[in-house]
Amino acid sequence: MSDHTAGPREVRAPRGSTLTTRGWQQEGALRMLLNNLDPEVAEHPDKLVVYGGTGKAARDWRSFEAITRTLTTLGQDETLLVQSGRPVGVMQTHEWAPRVLIANSNLVPDWANWEEFRRLESAGLTMYGQMTAGSWIYIGTQGILQGTYETFAAVAAKRFGGSLEGTITLTAGLGGMGGAQPLAVTMNGGVVICIDCDPSRIDRRIEHGYCDTRVDTLKAALDLAVEARDARRPLSIGLLGNAAELVPQLLAMDAPIDIVTDQTSAHDPLAYLPVGVAFEDMAEYARTKPAEFTDRARESMARHVEAMVGFQDKGAEVFDYGNSIRGEAQLAGYTRAFDFPGFVPAYIRPLFCEGKGPFRWAALSGDARDIAKTDKAVLDLFPENESLARWIKLAQEKVHFQGLPARICWLGYGERDKAGARFNDMVASGELAAPIVIGRDHLDCGSVASPYRETEGMLDGSDAIADWPLLNAMVNVASGASWVSIHHGGGVGIGRSIHAGQVTVADGTPLAGEKIRRVLTNDPGMGVIRHVDAGYDLAGEVADERGVRVPMREGDA
Amino acid sequence: MSDHTAGPREVRAPRGSTLTTRGWQQEGALRMLLNNLDPEVAEHPDKLVVYGGTGKAARDWRSFEAITRTLTTLGQDETLLVQSGRPVGVMQTHEWAPRVLIANSNLVPDWANWEEFRRLESAGLTMYGQMTAGSWIYIGTQGILQGTYETFAAVAAKRFGGSLEGTITLTAGLGGMGGAQPLAVTMNGGVVICIDCDPSRIDRRIEHGYCDTRVDTLKAALDLAVEARDARRPLSIGLLGNAAELVPQLLAMDAPIDIVTDQTSAHDPLAYLPVGVAFEDMAEYARTKPAEFTDRARESMARHVEAMVGFQDKGAEVFDYGNSIRGEAQLAGYTRAFDFPGFVPAYIRPLFCEGKGPFRWAALSGDARDIAKTDKAVLDLFPENESLARWIKLAQEKVHFQGLPARICWLGYGERDKAGARFNDMVASGELAAPIVIGRDHLDCGSVASPYRETEGMLDGSDAIADWPLLNAMVNVASGASWVSIHHGGGVGIGRSIHAGQVTVADGTPLAGEKIRRVLTNDPGMGVIRHVDAGYDLAGEVADERGVRVPMREGDA
Ligand SMILES: NC(=O)c1ccc[n+]([C@@H]2O[C@H](COP(=O)([O-])OP(=O)(O)OC[C@H]3O[C@@H](n4cnc5c(N)ncnc54)[C@H](O)[C@@H]3O)[C@@H](O)[C@H]2O)c1
Ligand SMILES: NC(=O)c1ccc[n+]([C@@H]2O[C@H](COP(=O)([O-])OP(=O)(O)OC[C@H]3O[C@@H](n4cnc5c(N)ncnc54)[C@H](O)[C@@H]3O)[C@@H](O)[C@H]2O)c1
Repeated sequence: MSDHTAGPREVRAPRGSTLTTRGWQQEGALRMLLNNLDPEVAEHPDKLVVYGGTGKAARDWRSFEAITRTLTTLGQDETLLVQSGRPVGVMQTHEWAPRVLIANSNLVPDWANWEEFRRLESAGLTMYGQMTAGSWIYIGTQGILQGTYETFAAVAAKRFGGSLEGTITLTAGLGGMGGAQPLAVTMNGGVVICIDCDPSRIDRRIEHGYCDTRVDTLKAALDLAVEARDARRPLSIGLLGNAAELVPQLLAMDAPIDIVTDQTSAHDPLAYLPVGVAFEDMAEYARTKPAEFTDRARESMARHVEAMVGFQDKGAEVFDYGNSIRGEAQLAGYTRAFDFPGFVPAYIRPLFCEGKGPFRWAALSGDARDIAKTDKAVLDLFPENESLARWIKLAQEKVHFQGLPARICWLGYGERDKAGARFNDMVASGELAAPIVIGRDHLDCGSVASPYRETEGMLDGSDAIADWPLLNAMVNVASGASWVSIHHGGGVGIGRSIHAGQVTVADGTPLAGEKIRRVLTNDPGMGVIRHVDAGYDLAGEVADERGVRVPMREGDA
Repeated sequence: MSDHTAGPREVRAPRGSTLTTRGWQQEGALRMLLNNLDPEVAEHPDKLVVYGGTGKAARDWRSFEAITRTLTTLGQDETLLVQSGRPVGVMQTHEWAPRVLIANSNLVPDWANWEEFRRLESAGLTMYGQMTAGSWIYIGTQGILQGTYETFAAVAAKRFGGSLEGTITLTAGLGGMGGAQPLAVTMNGGVVICIDCDPSRIDRRIEHGYCDTRVDTLKAALDLAVEARDARRPLSIGLLGNAAELVPQLLAMDAPIDIVTDQTSAHDPLAYLPVGVAFEDMAEYARTKPAEFTDRARESMARHVEAMVGFQDKGAEVFDYGNSIRGEAQLAGYTRAFDFPGFVPAYIRPLFCEGKGPFRWAALSGDARDIAKTDKAVLDLFPENESLARWIKLAQEKVHFQGLPARICWLGYGERDKAGARFNDMVASGELAAPIVIGRDHLDCGSVASPYRETEGMLDGSDAIADWPLLNAMVNVASGASWVSIHHGGGVGIGRSIHAGQVTVADGTPLAGEKIRRVLTNDPGMGVIRHVDAGYDLAGEVADERGVRVPMREGDA
């Protein structure tokens, strides 16, 4: 083995239509790995960290080197095996098989806790893969923006006739994820007040075009909001302050709020500002008196959640946005914390029943015109889908590409395969400059078991059953995906989730067309059958109408 | 859905060369599912329980019906998905893909405990798949006999020049698993004293030809043993009594014991007879005073283990045989309990480094002559392998087939594919009456993560890393296996293991030949690379000699 210690370097995916490997499936994997680590895309590329805390694309730089070297020479009937970011084998398979198989961060359950994980990680034996970091299909913040957009679109569809026009949303947290909220609300036509205690976060969102304006008093925020609402004009307002103070005050004032949620970093009580603490003193206080800080933060969260429940009592639409603020408030003794639901059972599950989820693709050419053409193709394919049309139009205006140009939108069973086949035809005809990779987040309809998020409150109580993501991975391997991954702990942390990903390269060949048709039918099909099995009527209807086969519904039924 | 409640029935696999389905891959899966539930094979077929406590082949009888119905009509490019024994989908794949994909008993880690499992099981949402029960490749007690034979053969190879001739082994426990010990030792040429407190167990082993004779006193046992040892004659002796009394007595007498192990049911303290309790009173005492019984059982285990350590101090070969007796003795306060190793690190791991593991096959014809012919083929292929030759010869004499005739033997990397290819040729030429299914236990070199058994004490501390079985499953799907499974909790129980299985049908076609070559190379290949990665020199040598590609050893190395 080499003594040479590989170190950090700046990487960027090759562009254009010239292969640097022996085929487009391998090339897709190589370019997307490199793209995940492009400084435009990754949060800490020098540490191989892509996003989401410590979500990495490769174990260490020696592993990175060995992966890229192996992909470069990998044959059309060979498969590279990657174990938590390290390449561990190359085996002969066949042309229908994936070129890369990945398993990241998986632990035997009794050992699946952060302490053992950290021990193994520091011994160099594993890495945290998050969802799309270790599976090489992260495309920057567009994914978060679109997911948040889709959630607010679902809120609009459920309560407000399909648009947030004429409504006011109240939320907090303008951090890495939460910062997508103001733009997602205005994209849906609404007005939003976003509270954050850190002025620099508000300013950054305004600078990046995600938030329209900043105010420092409650009254100013409310006046602006009401005026815009009455004019049915979208507007996002960053309000400086502590949500645990301001949300109760707004409730007491009987402010005309229609929708309430929150994306402060409540999952970590040392990152939530307690009432009565100045923002400037927060870091030092948390560091020196963590126990006292935690108690006070939880107490403040209880007041914050109590006010959210108060808004719900008055008729507002209220939901938890996946930051565990309900659980923390309950720990502080507030008993009604779980009176409002999490966002998945409230809005996303009906989409999952139709096999809908975060379909995404990237142009290996590096040419933004390829994405413009695929955008148009998607709009042509689904002319009746208004929310999709609005999203694509707004994304074209608002989203700055990071790394390889890419697009995300939610498509369902019977739609993804059509889009994929069209892209493949466009590559074949030369309309696009180079092949397209088609993948998705692991947060999808049939690819994740995560009882605090995606599978919270399943109708039949099957939240913790983890067979589904494993079947999802295996059926994607069996359908012709280009690379497939099984991860543990993404999103909600070690011990709390099992999930799978797939990416398939549309290289314009008939074989790729056959693979795409199967993968992009079977992959969302897992979402339909998972929800049929759990007893969701909507999923049953989708299965019947679109011909998804479920053996327990057949036979002498 | 049907109101019809499907109930228990007697099932048996079809025999012969006539298809009852649309192809031999489907036929193999169907016949092996039915064979697992054959009353000759299964422990409680009416409850769908095959072996190992509650290891089941299907969730319930309605699921069983739907699986068999679906397999009967399944096409050559279709794949059936099975979630914990229930068929949940049929998807279009391709001819290289498996016909069945199975995930059994998997839970998100934080919920992976017996309590939650039992809750989900009683809600009808999951089942316990054990290893080969839910993956349809159990072949009766031959598997246990061979595994025990292989362990004692490894002891012989390590300490006694390849044979147990002229040695005396001391063990206890003649139950379902432990009952294989006397025959496994004599098959290796040795003499063994097996203690059990239940006379009916000793008598049953004698009746079934697994044990030679029974004595009721220590002196009689020792006299017989020494005499046979001196004559270098294999002999197994069932000794009635309590191991916690007799093992310390034998130590005190300075009995000439060479090897000591134990397979009493120590994993469950309510099933281990404490010193001073009559066997007749055991069940009632455990039922009425479980806490007191547990304390006394653990105290007795401590004495038992202390004596085992005493034998080790005097130079005997001593090992734990996977029943947790060391852990229980430690709980009773005995500090040297872990002075002797578990059987996997002690004997099995060197075999795993060579990709060796429990290769097994069954004759779909139902014709015992097909197994006799394959036995001969294996002996012809590996004439230099003496232990294999001895095993096959003895198995032919001693093993009564249960259900479809089958054989098991341990083969390594570079061997399994040869055997599989030969079987396929024999089907093609008509030498065999019908196709052969080729599978293995999940307890194999690269298919299991189980820190209390198969991955105990890995050189690099990676015992709990569960990426390997998942990669193993995916690469088998990608290589052309006929059915592939991922299970949780087999062997050591919920929370403690993740493991994968594969079965491939040799139907005599060239395509099956191609699949077999890949699966039976890549599947044991996982064992080699798993142990290379953990730093075992032997595995590195095997990889280098036999051409197993490990990217971290390539490049500028
Ligand atoms: N819904 C989902 O799928 C999903 C996805 C990602 C993240 N999350 C959760 O959302 C939360 C936010 O994620 P992020 O990446 O944006 O975190 P972040 O740490 O980048 O941002 C949190 C923000 O909250 C602000 N804040 C803290 N306490 C406050 C208080 N009392 N009042 C007002 N502002 C306060 C901070 O100043 C910061 O700007 C996390 O808990 C995360 O786990 C949910
Ligand atoms: N090594 C492996 O891979 C492996 C495989 C299977 C089982 N096991 C373990 O081996 C053990 C035995 O399994 P089994 O299926 O044979 O169990 P079993 O319950 O069928 O048999 C246990 C036997 O031990 C006897 N016994 C109990 N206390 C005794 C005492 N104090 N003295 C003498 N005899 C006593 C009982 O009479 C019984 O015959 C279990 O703990 C099991 O978990 C290990």
